[in-house]
Amino acid sequence: MTEKNIPDVVVSRLPRYLQILNQMAREGLHTASSLMLAERLGSTASQIRKDLSLFGEFGKQGQGYSIYYLMEQLQKILHVDRIWKIVVIGAGELGRALTRYQGFASHGIEIVKLFDKDPKIIGTQVGSLVVQNVDTVAEEIQNKGIKMAILTVPGEVAQATAERLVDAGIRAILNYTPINLVLPPSVSVQYIDPVLHLQHMMYYLG
Amino acid sequence: MTEKNIPDVVVSRLPRYLQILNQMAREGLHTASSLMLAERLGSTASQIRKDLSLFGEFGKQGQGYSIYYLMEQLQKILHVDRIWKIVVIGAGELGRALTRYQGFASHGIEIVKLFDKDPKIIGTQVGSLVVQNVDTVAEEIQNKGIKMAILTVPGEVAQATAERLVDAGIRAILNYTPINLVLPPSVSVQYIDPVLHLQHMMYYLG
Repeated sequence: MTEKNIPDVVVSRLPRYLQILNQMAREGLHTASSLMLAERLGSTASQIRKDLSLFGEFGKQGQGYSIYYLMEQLQKILHVDRIWKIVVIGAGELGRALTRYQGFASHGIEIVKLFDKDPKIIGTQVGSLVVQNVDTVAEEIQNKGIKMAILTVPGEVAQATAERLVDAGIRAILNYTPINLVLPPSVSVQYIDPVLHLQHMMYYLG
Repeated sequence: MTEKNIPDVVVSRLPRYLQILNQMAREGLHTASSLMLAERLGSTASQIRKDLSLFGEFGKQGQGYSIYYLMEQLQKILHVDRIWKIVVIGAGELGRALTRYQGFASHGIEIVKLFDKDPKIIGTQVGSLVVQNVDTVAEEIQNKGIKMAILTVPGEVAQATAERLVDAGIRAILNYTPINLVLPPSVSVQYIDPVLHLQHMMYYLG
């Protein structure tokens, strides 16, 4: 179902489309025009039509999109139509908060393991999980065939930890550290760093 | 210094360029080729040259970029070459963690106020700040001329709170809620939602 040569910037917008369609469905709406979507996204109708047309024909001219049908299609395109098991590396304040976060389950995202290297933290309970020694991470990832990790370790060990995860089979890392990770091109990395996101917006405030 | 008609996707990469140049400077490097930058970014040399050329001529053919000069120029372009005062709305676990976060200061980002509406939380100390009643937020924003806010309130009140901030003069919101915000086009919004970022990467894992 993955289409070739779709620009990453288009892919990055699809989860937002899905978020808005979900919200519209919860409001009891059944169809949405590209203009309605654009107004909610702060985008334009032509951008939305252009983005979606890269993946197929999802609406009929003049009738708008069926919200449920488009949601189902976007879920397939993004591969979110299944359960994704994920590990969290680093059981500090942030790692613990993410492990306990209630908002993952409804999106099919399941945090299955939480790791740390601090003997004082290993063995403690966080939500329904017990913090495990990070030295066992490769074994756990391989046994469970896990492909995604959330990285919340201290910056000094971010690169080394990421390399270890990739060696164990991880192919996507959500990087909460403020460190740039240098990894093979086959590995996806997303940066969640408030500094980067704030700086992006400062450009427009100048 | 803001150039017109620069695609937002290019702007979004500039903070990452700055992050990498900072890292190289800390490693004691003085010059960087576009290839060196590309290897660290998981990008291509031509993309980096193309992005930077939209803003000016920063390197000499065959000599690479002076790291300090390029950093200085990018800081000017992004307007990060000054102190930015920011408010945090919502003093739950995440709002408190962000308020205490040590990584902002070195980037000129200063959290000056933290607000909540819960009488049990108002008046409590978080780092060097005392949580204030959110009913005073407009006054504080106007008095201090603050343009940026970090939003960590519960989803149910996210839209209403964001509108209140915009009415008070906020022009950029870092949105940690899982809610799509509908705001005037003059307001920048960045979404920090682990679900959206994980879904983006799931596309490539399918």
